[in-house]
Amino acid sequence: MFQSFEDGADPSVGPARLSALRAELARLGVVGFIIPRADEYQGEYVPASAERLAWLTGFTGSAGIAVVLEREAAVFVDGRYTTQVRRQVDTSVFTPVSIAEIRPSAWLGERLGVDQKVGFDPRLHTRAEVRRFEAACHAAGAHLVALDANPLDAVWSDRPAPPLAPITLYPEERAGRSAADKIATLQADLKRKGADAGLLTATDSVAWLFNIRGADIPHIPVALASALVPSEGRPTLYVDARKLTNSVRDALAEIAEIAEIDEPENLSARLAELGHHENAVLIDPNLTPEAYVRAVESAGGELIEADDPVVAEKAVKTPAEVAGSRSAHHRDGMAVARFLAWLEQRGEEGFSEIEAVTALENFRAETGELKEISFDTISGAGPNGAIVHYRVTERTDRRIAPGELFLIDSGGQYLDGTTDITRTVAFGPPSEEMRVRFTQVLKGHIAIARARFPVGTSGAQLDALARISLWQSGHDFDHGTGHGVGAYLSVHEGPQRISKLGHTALEPGMIVSNEPGYYRPDHFGIRIENLVLVTPPAALPGGEREMLGFETLTLAPIDRRLILPRLLSPAEIAWLDSYHLRVQGALAGDLDPETRDWLIGATRPIVG
Amino acid sequence: MFQSFEDGADPSVGPARLSALRAELARLGVVGFIIPRADEYQGEYVPASAERLAWLTGFTGSAGIAVVLEREAAVFVDGRYTTQVRRQVDTSVFTPVSIAEIRPSAWLGERLGVDQKVGFDPRLHTRAEVRRFEAACHAAGAHLVALDANPLDAVWSDRPAPPLAPITLYPEERAGRSAADKIATLQADLKRKGADAGLLTATDSVAWLFNIRGADIPHIPVALASALVPSEGRPTLYVDARKLTNSVRDALAEIAEIAEIDEPENLSARLAELGHHENAVLIDPNLTPEAYVRAVESAGGELIEADDPVVAEKAVKTPAEVAGSRSAHHRDGMAVARFLAWLEQRGEEGFSEIEAVTALENFRAETGELKEISFDTISGAGPNGAIVHYRVTERTDRRIAPGELFLIDSGGQYLDGTTDITRTVAFGPPSEEMRVRFTQVLKGHIAIARARFPVGTSGAQLDALARISLWQSGHDFDHGTGHGVGAYLSVHEGPQRISKLGHTALEPGMIVSNEPGYYRPDHFGIRIENLVLVTPPAALPGGEREMLGFETLTLAPIDRRLILPRLLSPAEIAWLDSYHLRVQGALAGDLDPETRDWLIGATRPIVG
Repeated sequence: MFQSFEDGADPSVGPARLSALRAELARLGVVGFIIPRADEYQGEYVPASAERLAWLTGFTGSAGIAVVLEREAAVFVDGRYTTQVRRQVDTSVFTPVSIAEIRPSAWLGERLGVDQKVGFDPRLHTRAEVRRFEAACHAAGAHLVALDANPLDAVWSDRPAPPLAPITLYPEERAGRSAADKIATLQADLKRKGADAGLLTATDSVAWLFNIRGADIPHIPVALASALVPSEGRPTLYVDARKLTNSVRDALAEIAEIAEIDEPENLSARLAELGHHENAVLIDPNLTPEAYVRAVESAGGELIEADDPVVAEKAVKTPAEVAGSRSAHHRDGMAVARFLAWLEQRGEEGFSEIEAVTALENFRAETGELKEISFDTISGAGPNGAIVHYRVTERTDRRIAPGELFLIDSGGQYLDGTTDITRTVAFGPPSEEMRVRFTQVLKGHIAIARARFPVGTSGAQLDALARISLWQSGHDFDHGTGHGVGAYLSVHEGPQRISKLGHTALEPGMIVSNEPGYYRPDHFGIRIENLVLVTPPAALPGGEREMLGFETLTLAPIDRRLILPRLLSPAEIAWLDSYHLRVQGALAGDLDPETRDWLIGATRPIVG
Repeated sequence: MFQSFEDGADPSVGPARLSALRAELARLGVVGFIIPRADEYQGEYVPASAERLAWLTGFTGSAGIAVVLEREAAVFVDGRYTTQVRRQVDTSVFTPVSIAEIRPSAWLGERLGVDQKVGFDPRLHTRAEVRRFEAACHAAGAHLVALDANPLDAVWSDRPAPPLAPITLYPEERAGRSAADKIATLQADLKRKGADAGLLTATDSVAWLFNIRGADIPHIPVALASALVPSEGRPTLYVDARKLTNSVRDALAEIAEIAEIDEPENLSARLAELGHHENAVLIDPNLTPEAYVRAVESAGGELIEADDPVVAEKAVKTPAEVAGSRSAHHRDGMAVARFLAWLEQRGEEGFSEIEAVTALENFRAETGELKEISFDTISGAGPNGAIVHYRVTERTDRRIAPGELFLIDSGGQYLDGTTDITRTVAFGPPSEEMRVRFTQVLKGHIAIARARFPVGTSGAQLDALARISLWQSGHDFDHGTGHGVGAYLSVHEGPQRISKLGHTALEPGMIVSNEPGYYRPDHFGIRIENLVLVTPPAALPGGEREMLGFETLTLAPIDRRLILPRLLSPAEIAWLDSYHLRVQGALAGDLDPETRDWLIGATRPIVG
């Protein structure tokens, strides 16, 4: 199966590992060392071979950073992980610190003396991150030292081997553009920016550019690989050659001549060579590891700091990717419909959070097309639904009880697209409060779904539409309204988003989630999430200006039992009824009779 | 009276003046010269003695810039002035250029040859502006040269004398804070930022800091004056001493010892002295004239570039300023009520745009408290209402005709506060289209007026609430939803605003306009504007989080004849009825019987 329900590492191993690391640091002459969660690719997931933070501390969250000093060690986590970190690390040797209270760089700066040296692995930190640590060390009169070899790796005796999953070609019919065309566009962009070459270290940028996919990390179908793209001539793909079958190698290098292939350990030397010839290399300071930046810089090359130029291109889906997403959502919608019907068929017996995750994964797998789930399913019964990033484990698994809400946020990776959907359903009669909040969240969801907006509008401008119904009664939710979604790539991608921080204009072809929520701690959680596609500027009847809008891609009923029709406007009811009619029309014909009957009931009009 | 209705200068004088200027440029050895509309204070208005752009070209708009070369001269204007500029300048010698098409710096850069010199007056351009021109000249291999004396001034024989209006003290009871307290806060801020001194060149910042007011320019009660504030010790006010009566001088310098007084021509030397002693001086690159920046720089001083630190402080009104604003709005509301009643009493005879402006100014003047109107009244009948920045002249004056809309945007400067209100009224039966659009605009206005939002929310996040009802039918308006307003200062102030560019968090005590609109070119214009005050975080019944909100300050009826109740939600109708009830309650008791009767009719509930 795709999802495990383990609770992470054993805190008891921490002290011994920490001692071994400290001995190594003493040998190297540094008083401290920084251990980020990230690897060389700065992605959302890392392979087991790069789980340095988890190995040392026991903490398995998706974001965090440890700073080890001679007599103190801290593990910094964000609000999602303040409880988990205390359970997973031995607090007699590691101090959990909330990153909202103090930044790791500031914490470190406060503890350093003049001329002390702190080490870091320049392969694991971006340029922007190193700048923050350097400023803090500088202010304390101390020095931040890039180490040639990672001292943690030196003491990590049972380190797993790095992944070697085979790379596959992503068919041009699905991508809608050839790798050659994407590379040519990128090269023109590099020239415009005065760069002789661009360095790509984000694995989904690399996968998109070369129309390849991999399986090196959980949930995102990418290979761990970087690329160096000269503004003229053939790019080089830096990847472990063992991941390439002969046919893929032929397609990439030998026959189609899309890219040269080289080993990742040769990238730094190649960057130094470019630097030596005074080339200008484009790097993204928020993505590129410091080691690569220094390779260019110390050889005398010029750096052009800019956003990874593939990110903005990749965000706008091709017609083929859009068509693929529609068919992935049709397939996923059938699995979700079977699942939602199954939830109700459980009757009074109900279900546990893990049973629900397993059932939903099975329904998706039974489509015969599921490659992977697109992230670990969030399955929260009752109060667990109020934990925004909850991940069920055997220890926390909870059975739904009458009068509770159940929130499930999940998605699938299919060759033709990536899905992400959240539904909140009632088990037994919901309270009036639950129905009021659910309807307020639904009003926010509908406001986004039916919004029209002029060219140039950003997600930051639309975000309040999803919140105003909650704001008016003194409520809110503490996450963005929507994130960008890739095409059989990461379920989280930029630059498009609906959030007060989303200042990129929404463009036709972008896919973004629409997921307002409400969370009453220790009681219940609500989230209603569909993926939506930004539609091209179009004239409206009687209108003067062409407007963009959203097409909802996700096809699944929204629980009518939780809706208070009196709180909805006629336009909101019309949207909901028409959405439900569309869901029914799209799915009913292909479902088994039992699920079809359930669906017809679940999608009937709200009034009448 | 306060407003004239003239059409500006005579285009025929342009060629001779341009020739004289070109001769002077040749004498100085430069091939060109840049003439901005701004003076040393970079404000919205300049005194007649600084109307260089108008004197040379004839163009009298509130924003523009001319670039004069040996054989070409261009006048750059924004979208508001594309028609006006063609009427006001002699197009045989001046080429009108839309600033949306090409920036003046780019236009200049395209026309310069290697080693050519272009002059500019460093007193009239900000640092940021000079940077743009420098980059364009640099790219062309040419040089931008700061001239010691302005060559236009050398040929401007009939130049008016600079204004010398007396400065008055603004009572501490009205300001709510002493000048000493404001200065101490500013000095603490300067220290935090590592500055030894801060330079203030915005006249409203200076007026606010020292609790003084002046009358040197139209509509804004400020003196043309700058200030240099050391992080310790007494600030210096740079102002022509003839503007100071003995009593004001005593209060500022002699007795209260709030500030030293010095002549403006000594400021550069003082800045050079600071620079010479290696002081760090805080300047705002978007406000500070280049001449002052260079004075510090060339003497070896350090520059700290930051926003004018007074701007953010000034934006948050004191309780005394808020109380003053409420009473100014009560007084202004009575004048507006008399005016709106007068409009109706005109009957079939109707009124002209100028008659309306004059009548409204008279009603305001009859309060006995009006100091000035806060900007030139926008009074547009029928199609003129669709011109967003329309200013009526004898030539364009238009009589209202049956079936037309009349839009009037105006405000008063009272000692206790600054007002700004727009009302759109029907003359005879309005069309269905007018009523639909008016109601959509009203929905946007109400959405802002009744919005609740968490601490930290910016105007950029709220802006879409004012537009979504128009967006949904393919309509929009091309201006911000709201601008900040001062306390007996400028009717336009930052940093608070409701606009997609307004990224400053709204704070309790800020005053901002709420003025969505709709404009159908050549047909009609609609705008509904009230000023609103940001209210402190407050708990809502049944709510979890404290929310900010808006208190509407403006008190005047909104034309019920233009509202289609079927397009309003119950909550919107409730807001409108309750607003009208408040207007009636606040004003009716103090009005003459005839206006009172009219007001009672104009404020009766929408339904029933």
